[in-house]
Amino acid sequence: MSHKVIFDTDPGVDDAMALYFAMAHPAIEVVGITTTFGNVTVPQATANALYLTRLAGVKIPVAEGGAMPLMKVAGKPPGFIHGDDGLGNLPTRLAHSGQAETISAAEFIVTMARQYPGEITLVAVGPLINLGLALKMEPQLPKLIKQVVLMAGTVIEPGNVSPVAEANVWNDPHAADLVFSAGWKLAMVGLDVTHRVILESAYFAGLAQHHQQHPAITTLLHAVNFYCDFYQAARPDLGHACYCHDILAFVYLVAPELFQTQDGRVRVQLDGLGNGQTMMDRHAGALAYAQSGWEAHRPETRVCLQVDTAQCLALIESTLEADWLRKPLVS
Amino acid sequence: MSHKVIFDTDPGVDDAMALYFAMAHPAIEVVGITTTFGNVTVPQATANALYLTRLAGVKIPVAEGGAMPLMKVAGKPPGFIHGDDGLGNLPTRLAHSGQAETISAAEFIVTMARQYPGEITLVAVGPLINLGLALKMEPQLPKLIKQVVLMAGTVIEPGNVSPVAEANVWNDPHAADLVFSAGWKLAMVGLDVTHRVILESAYFAGLAQHHQQHPAITTLLHAVNFYCDFYQAARPDLGHACYCHDILAFVYLVAPELFQTQDGRVRVQLDGLGNGQTMMDRHAGALAYAQSGWEAHRPETRVCLQVDTAQCLALIESTLEADWLRKPLVS
Repeated sequence: MSHKVIFDTDPGVDDAMALYFAMAHPAIEVVGITTTFGNVTVPQATANALYLTRLAGVKIPVAEGGAMPLMKVAGKPPGFIHGDDGLGNLPTRLAHSGQAETISAAEFIVTMARQYPGEITLVAVGPLINLGLALKMEPQLPKLIKQVVLMAGTVIEPGNVSPVAEANVWNDPHAADLVFSAGWKLAMVGLDVTHRVILESAYFAGLAQHHQQHPAITTLLHAVNFYCDFYQAARPDLGHACYCHDILAFVYLVAPELFQTQDGRVRVQLDGLGNGQTMMDRHAGALAYAQSGWEAHRPETRVCLQVDTAQCLALIESTLEADWLRKPLVS
Repeated sequence: MSHKVIFDTDPGVDDAMALYFAMAHPAIEVVGITTTFGNVTVPQATANALYLTRLAGVKIPVAEGGAMPLMKVAGKPPGFIHGDDGLGNLPTRLAHSGQAETISAAEFIVTMARQYPGEITLVAVGPLINLGLALKMEPQLPKLIKQVVLMAGTVIEPGNVSPVAEANVWNDPHAADLVFSAGWKLAMVGLDVTHRVILESAYFAGLAQHHQQHPAITTLLHAVNFYCDFYQAARPDLGHACYCHDILAFVYLVAPELFQTQDGRVRVQLDGLGNGQTMMDRHAGALAYAQSGWEAHRPETRVCLQVDTAQCLALIESTLEADWLRKPLVS
């Protein structure tokens, strides 16, 4: 059975890895890409989504989404992590890689959900403005969508933009709280598991060789090397390596058995020093809470708390090493 | 060496346990008690502090403190946990148990700190209004106080008034943030460790027998039974038992080697759904945070993350079973 996926993304280096994992995996059909601000500005995200798909030889519809958060004042994209262009500052790009759809990301999600009721999976690995807007545009969306998988948030693991907040949720806390409160089938793949899965840049060098220096993979390798430079400065103990953040949302989709999960209500801290934190009710209300906002009727999220690192890496590697690349469609 | 302690407390059942542990332990000299709202109103807390000390046969100065939080709107005390009187709704009390000091809790703390510079340890197990006010009253207080030990907060363990907040900090988040930011020698004994140390009501029944039904211990037993009723309803898996929360602040004072700790900046969430959460920078800023408020100059707190449960219980039991009780001073 193949998963019909709309990939909501802000590429971004690990987004690019995730996109290629999804394109390479036989059980995933990416029927559309929606872009958002986050790792880069949204026009850059759109350009990157078009470029990465065409480089790998496949045309996938790309719909451009939110340029800024729902409520929060927008910050500057973290060029020091992903490069100013989101792909490690590529020295050159082939010019023509096609055009985005004429409708917005939220409209694209709603249109596809209505066209394929109960069939579409949303895999969202950036700030959640597009999902938030789509929910407001079509209140029946949670019934039309098959399931939602997020790379977002953290419960026990420390945050990566503050001691308690993960970047995607921190970038748009209000949209994220709408997504966690919507009542659809929802899984959260956050830092609790993504910080357990690390790949060295050397692996991607080998992958480029394996694929005879296919331009999609040499582009990815360039981006990964920049990304690993950042991580090596921040976390010298990792070596020249990086977390595989966004890929894990797709790994969860095709191999949920590799994760230990807990179901519980998740809310987002909207204000103050802790803003952008995902707070999970791990006691499921067993103690008598003095603080409202955790009522029993609120929907639960399936939160990934542990992962089988070795099997996860094996699945990522075997998928990326399959024979999936086609002749580039860029010129 | 004996620790000269001012005990800041809102008795409260586990406060009563902690007070008796402190009175019983040969290395602790309780030179004063300051009271606060929290488990009960502050007049009730003062009455209980006077009653419990006199029942055990010792006069200790009691100074009444804050009746409400620094900024937050005060809530109703949790009578369903500690009883409306804080001691499990005692059926009768002996009437005369003395008077509180004429100065406030914060004045008492400042006066003692000036009188015994570098000698006073503050052990605070309630909302932190008195410590917050004392810091504002005497900006040199952090240099005058030897050390501060808090039963407060939580880092990894879920909260007990919300999924992320511990009751003492939640009751007065602003005062708590002042205490964590003051720059004194500070240790936090929170739910990460207090949820690992559990005593059954049967233990206290045995303790009353051991002490020939001394009225201090039969009073404590009555309170503990009420407290365990609450826990049994909320957490049936515990049996008729309770967490030893406040005692652990004193256990840390006399036996810090029983705890695994980490030093790091702690801040308090002041607003929103997560208000009252203690947020700890467990990465010590190793990642490049996008969120300000975690600057390197901010003081660190020594946070207890794990405890040797068996040794902790052994110390509590041997201390409470020593020959420390005197003839009650109440009539």
